[in-house]
Amino acid sequence: MATLETYIDRFRFAELKREGGILTIKLHSKGDSLRWGERPLQELPIVMWEVGQDPENEVVILTGSGDNFIADFFDEPSQSGYAAFNFDRALRNQRAVIDGLLNISAPMIAAVNGPAHIHSEYALLCDIVLAAENTTFQDAAHYQSGLPPGDGVQIVWPALIGINRARYFLMTGQKIDAGEALRLGVVSEVLPQADLMGRARQLADQLMTVPQTVRSLARETLNCYWRRLMQEDLAFGLLSEGKGSMQLYAERQA
Amino acid sequence: MATLETYIDRFRFAELKREGGILTIKLHSKGDSLRWGERPLQELPIVMWEVGQDPENEVVILTGSGDNFIADFFDEPSQSGYAAFNFDRALRNQRAVIDGLLNISAPMIAAVNGPAHIHSEYALLCDIVLAAENTTFQDAAHYQSGLPPGDGVQIVWPALIGINRARYFLMTGQKIDAGEALRLGVVSEVLPQADLMGRARQLADQLMTVPQTVRSLARETLNCYWRRLMQEDLAFGLLSEGKGSMQLYAERQA
Amino acid sequence: MATLETYIDRFRFAELKREGGILTIKLHSKGDSLRWGERPLQELPIVMWEVGQDPENEVVILTGSGDNFIADFFDEPSQSGYAAFNFDRALRNQRAVIDGLLNISAPMIAAVNGPAHIHSEYALLCDIVLAAENTTFQDAAHYQSGLPPGDGVQIVWPALIGINRARYFLMTGQKIDAGEALRLGVVSEVLPQADLMGRARQLADQLMTVPQTVRSLARETLNCYWRRLMQEDLAFGLLSEGKGSMQLYAERQA
Amino acid sequence: MATLETYIDRFRFAELKREGGILTIKLHSKGDSLRWGERPLQELPIVMWEVGQDPENEVVILTGSGDNFIADFFDEPSQSGYAAFNFDRALRNQRAVIDGLLNISAPMIAAVNGPAHIHSEYALLCDIVLAAENTTFQDAAHYQSGLPPGDGVQIVWPALIGINRARYFLMTGQKIDAGEALRLGVVSEVLPQADLMGRARQLADQLMTVPQTVRSLARETLNCYWRRLMQEDLAFGLLSEGKGSMQLYAERQA
Amino acid sequence: MATLETYIDRFRFAELKREGGILTIKLHSKGDSLRWGERPLQELPIVMWEVGQDPENEVVILTGSGDNFIADFFDEPSQSGYAAFNFDRALRNQRAVIDGLLNISAPMIAAVNGPAHIHSEYALLCDIVLAAENTTFQDAAHYQSGLPPGDGVQIVWPALIGINRARYFLMTGQKIDAGEALRLGVVSEVLPQADLMGRARQLADQLMTVPQTVRSLARETLNCYWRRLMQEDLAFGLLSEGKGSMQLYAERQA
Amino acid sequence: MATLETYIDRFRFAELKREGGILTIKLHSKGDSLRWGERPLQELPIVMWEVGQDPENEVVILTGSGDNFIADFFDEPSQSGYAAFNFDRALRNQRAVIDGLLNISAPMIAAVNGPAHIHSEYALLCDIVLAAENTTFQDAAHYQSGLPPGDGVQIVWPALIGINRARYFLMTGQKIDAGEALRLGVVSEVLPQADLMGRARQLADQLMTVPQTVRSLARETLNCYWRRLMQEDLAFGLLSEGKGSMQLYAERQA
Repeated sequence: MATLETYIDRFRFAELKREGGILTIKLHSKGDSLRWGERPLQELPIVMWEVGQDPENEVVILTGSGDNFIADFFDEPSQSGYAAFNFDRALRNQRAVIDGLLNISAPMIAAVNGPAHIHSEYALLCDIVLAAENTTFQDAAHYQSGLPPGDGVQIVWPALIGINRARYFLMTGQKIDAGEALRLGVVSEVLPQADLMGRARQLADQLMTVPQTVRSLARETLNCYWRRLMQEDLAFGLLSEGKGSMQLYAERQA
Repeated sequence: MATLETYIDRFRFAELKREGGILTIKLHSKGDSLRWGERPLQELPIVMWEVGQDPENEVVILTGSGDNFIADFFDEPSQSGYAAFNFDRALRNQRAVIDGLLNISAPMIAAVNGPAHIHSEYALLCDIVLAAENTTFQDAAHYQSGLPPGDGVQIVWPALIGINRARYFLMTGQKIDAGEALRLGVVSEVLPQADLMGRARQLADQLMTVPQTVRSLARETLNCYWRRLMQEDLAFGLLSEGKGSMQLYAERQA
Repeated sequence: MATLETYIDRFRFAELKREGGILTIKLHSKGDSLRWGERPLQELPIVMWEVGQDPENEVVILTGSGDNFIADFFDEPSQSGYAAFNFDRALRNQRAVIDGLLNISAPMIAAVNGPAHIHSEYALLCDIVLAAENTTFQDAAHYQSGLPPGDGVQIVWPALIGINRARYFLMTGQKIDAGEALRLGVVSEVLPQADLMGRARQLADQLMTVPQTVRSLARETLNCYWRRLMQEDLAFGLLSEGKGSMQLYAERQA
Repeated sequence: MATLETYIDRFRFAELKREGGILTIKLHSKGDSLRWGERPLQELPIVMWEVGQDPENEVVILTGSGDNFIADFFDEPSQSGYAAFNFDRALRNQRAVIDGLLNISAPMIAAVNGPAHIHSEYALLCDIVLAAENTTFQDAAHYQSGLPPGDGVQIVWPALIGINRARYFLMTGQKIDAGEALRLGVVSEVLPQADLMGRARQLADQLMTVPQTVRSLARETLNCYWRRLMQEDLAFGLLSEGKGSMQLYAERQA
Repeated sequence: MATLETYIDRFRFAELKREGGILTIKLHSKGDSLRWGERPLQELPIVMWEVGQDPENEVVILTGSGDNFIADFFDEPSQSGYAAFNFDRALRNQRAVIDGLLNISAPMIAAVNGPAHIHSEYALLCDIVLAAENTTFQDAAHYQSGLPPGDGVQIVWPALIGINRARYFLMTGQKIDAGEALRLGVVSEVLPQADLMGRARQLADQLMTVPQTVRSLARETLNCYWRRLMQEDLAFGLLSEGKGSMQLYAERQA
Repeated sequence: MATLETYIDRFRFAELKREGGILTIKLHSKGDSLRWGERPLQELPIVMWEVGQDPENEVVILTGSGDNFIADFFDEPSQSGYAAFNFDRALRNQRAVIDGLLNISAPMIAAVNGPAHIHSEYALLCDIVLAAENTTFQDAAHYQSGLPPGDGVQIVWPALIGINRARYFLMTGQKIDAGEALRLGVVSEVLPQADLMGRARQLADQLMTVPQTVRSLARETLNCYWRRLMQEDLAFGLLSEGKGSMQLYAERQA
């Protein structure tokens, strides 16, 4: 059985801290906002797996660093990045992140500290989602980049804002700001960036007041919703994205 | 085949009245607002079963008494109330209420006469939901009381307000007032309490204008939505709540 | 493999035009707004089939003519129209329109040019939905006409506006105007009627910028949503509507 | 809460007996084999409901009388029997029998005492199915009688013998004898008629050895299988059968 | 509405004949056993579409020519055949064949006249499946040829013989002869080749004895089974096969 | 990315060996047949996770040691073993084993070397299942031990032998020998124990002949079957078993 000591220092893109049962996962690139790429995607499944194995994580807060949640690419998939092997692995990793996140049996709070233009679903799948006022949501990683939206965004966004709003959002590159995200029910509270983590911890304390098994059953009961949707459509979406990337690579090479 | 005479006077917490095919079910405790507890939960499956068996109920109005729909407990589940046997029966009854309600083949109108903090799903599952201006919605029976939300609220609320709003609502004890409920599509009209039943009857008259089999097929066609969701997740939720209650009981005893 | 020449002139209620891979389907009755009836319903499955068979249709715009999308009946189903045989065929055709529309692998943009009171689902199933300011939505073809809402409206409307708003909309004859449709996420942009087609083409051009297979995979990935819902409930709905029409016919004859 | 005394003598077509928690439901017509018709179908939902409400029924045995389980019609649906109203009620009753049977939380043993040519699904849905050597299975109530097989046989038979065997069985009137039923896994033991009830009671005693809640959870865990299938396809099937009967009636009248 | 005259002579690989409402579709290559390739796959969706559009096809018999049902390739997908574009089209066609076959509302009888090693699912999806004694079943088109089994075989075979038998069959190249196919419930009767069509017509005549709408509802009721399975897994399978073929092509080119 | 060196020696109950891409997982207790208990259940999720993370495992063989696959308990859950906390963890582990096994993207061959009376589903979920002649199958861990069958057996056995055979098997303690398992399609080949591993390796070599991505897509395509079933019913089953164990523990304490 995992204990915090065995995994707290293993990660390069995720800083972990636990106080009184409340674990904070802070995504980052050398301390500043995480810049997305293959390496964080290889690391995150293991973060989620380890966090989920350790029963002493009783509530989990997921947040970013600096002014963005995740908004920029470190290594924009280069031409060679589109080769089939890597993409297959990337998609397998993406699946493992989502499965791993849903398998964490502690309630999760997302504290979205700013623009979430890449993998916003990591935050949106959490039970309670708070956003800083400077947050914007966008899907920068798919249609705009020549790829079909299949890594989970095609599931999470229709569930949150309705299928017609979501298709427009995913196919046109629309940006949604914090106020609109609140109106649409994507996030549940919008706060000044400075107050974000304080409020997250306050809610975490509040969630701690029921027995652990009850907390975990509440989480599981509500996660049924996402598990079913992921089971139904994630595999097809990931495969679409994989095939799309091969096609894009072939065209670019030709 | 049931006729009104055989069941109209059997119930202690539900006053029935039928005029021109329109049956009104008025929930109450000695004439005032229903106070929730084990006994109404034992009675309601039979109310629903009898109402559903009688083809002369052509439209059904569900309402409360006094200033609340259901907002208070009569017998707050005492320590002893958490013993396993009773909880199992309670959850079996809850399932029977929901099945019974959905099996009524007449269109149903909910006239929510005030705060619905306990089992608001009984109203929200009706085809048309009207609310008095003094109505508020809350989930007082689960997370706040140390139980996982598994008796149907975890299904009905995400369907109505989206999964992220619903998780916040169910896990933090949030109250939603009538105006917000209207904006979110939880209810379809908000009226002064005094006008509520009049409007409900007006809509009932309007629903009566199509042939009975068409009315019943319309109801059935739209109920597909709820039947599927209940089939998918209700059993797991009820079991979660049952297990959570045993755990809570065990902890309180220890 | 179909080519445009083989089907462009076959249709009486749909004018087709293709420029640079962007196909526009303009519904009409002799050049003015389409008036609904049995004959357009016989033709539309073939329109969808042919459009779907031709890989040179790369983006598709669906619109109406004159001031309505579809708002009036040409031949209000007469008494004799309710005879079982015709209704069975009509419902089989309706299923073929929906299947055919979803089987088109090119992204689709609906330009709703005005009131859509009959078969608004043809527009709402498109990926991007634009509406002219004079648009209103209503379901004129079912409950108000004595039929259960089973031809797809019972699926599309709950998905777009939530089940409780949708039941109210479908059972009371409510009208939703363009502004409310935008707020509810039914449509994604509202424009002056004169600007509608220009904006549709602009978006079509934008959608053309990714490789064809990616465009088609994006469409397919997002269509999973509708395919599942249609599979789950369309057959039951169509059968309900068919049985309801027989009943209505029998009552009217008696 | 129901007790045996309140319902044991209410039924005309079902003789109830309980010994040591083991309830036997013996279907009959005046003591001999049940002859099927509208009245038993009106009574059976109530039998199932009452049996399911009473927690003192700990194991249930379902059997027939005389030499048949159910093999003959009492009142072959006459011409007038095909009128829409009665058929709708019949199908609603059929649904209630199946729901009621699955809602019984005690393990059920079917002791099929002979030919089961009508509603064999009542027996086949039980947890353990024993058959007398003289048993044969057939579907006499549908295709052979001019009706689509939609009342549950189209779900139960494909589940038990595979879809291709089941379609042949349902569309050609094939008979399956006890030995073949055993080979195909439809029944689990075949015995001389005289030994049938003894063996059923022996198995019932064996099932009694675990705690009641465990027995009931085991039943529920395995019933997931049927609940899902019934949810998916029963409503459509019943409606098909209802529509088919209207059509048949119309043709016979013409 | 299609009539036989408009489509009977359009097909190169399917000879159509209709007597008394019974349509026979005889697959062939220049009169002898059909040899599989891209062109029959382009034609078959249109065959199914036209047959399904014509209400005068009341029972349909599907058979092959000569000594094989489909057992050999005409144009074994050459290296160049693995190019993405063609494969995508091929898989789209395959989906259209299956959808088209299931959309035929007349009962279907397969008369498998010999080895069915390629696309045996066309026969096995029919309501009644008869086989000549010389029939064998095998999956020659996938794992043995370096492709994942995704075009429907991965759905049809587990449904018919169980998932573990099916995985062995699909991954090892196993052959199943007629007798074993009968024992496993894949086919329902095995006959000398000379008697096959006679028996098929005899069963077709028998199926004709119920009213057309009942026949069609019976077919639809039982087709629910396949429609659901195809909806759940066909799209993913086809995409897997498409991606697998790109990979195979890339490897062969390298 | 995991490499064999990092995990090969970490396990106490699983001996790993890899030759030419073929990994063999041999379950054992100190070299002899694995005796089941809490510790192997804690280790197996990690085995599956590590094997699944390493792309150099191209085909996987799962087998046991000595004369049993898994047939005996090391530490029969003692009274104290029934305390809630441990059982919750055990069930979470069981879920992780099944998820982990299905997430391995290499084809899997089970070589069942003898009696599989506990967790036979680990073998039966593999793509190809071979059994030694001395193999018997039984469910010794549930109904016979006072627990509801909820850890996956209630899903795997109905899928393999049909729901009625499976309920009998699970509720009566029936034993199925190798020959019967072959006839029922539970296993695909039965061999002398001495020939078992040789045949497994022969099949593994045969599976190696297609490109890795094709092999992995074939596995994934066929795994859809199990993923869906596990998603639908595993969570409910595990919770039932957890609640059943609390009940059993409470009764034994009383």
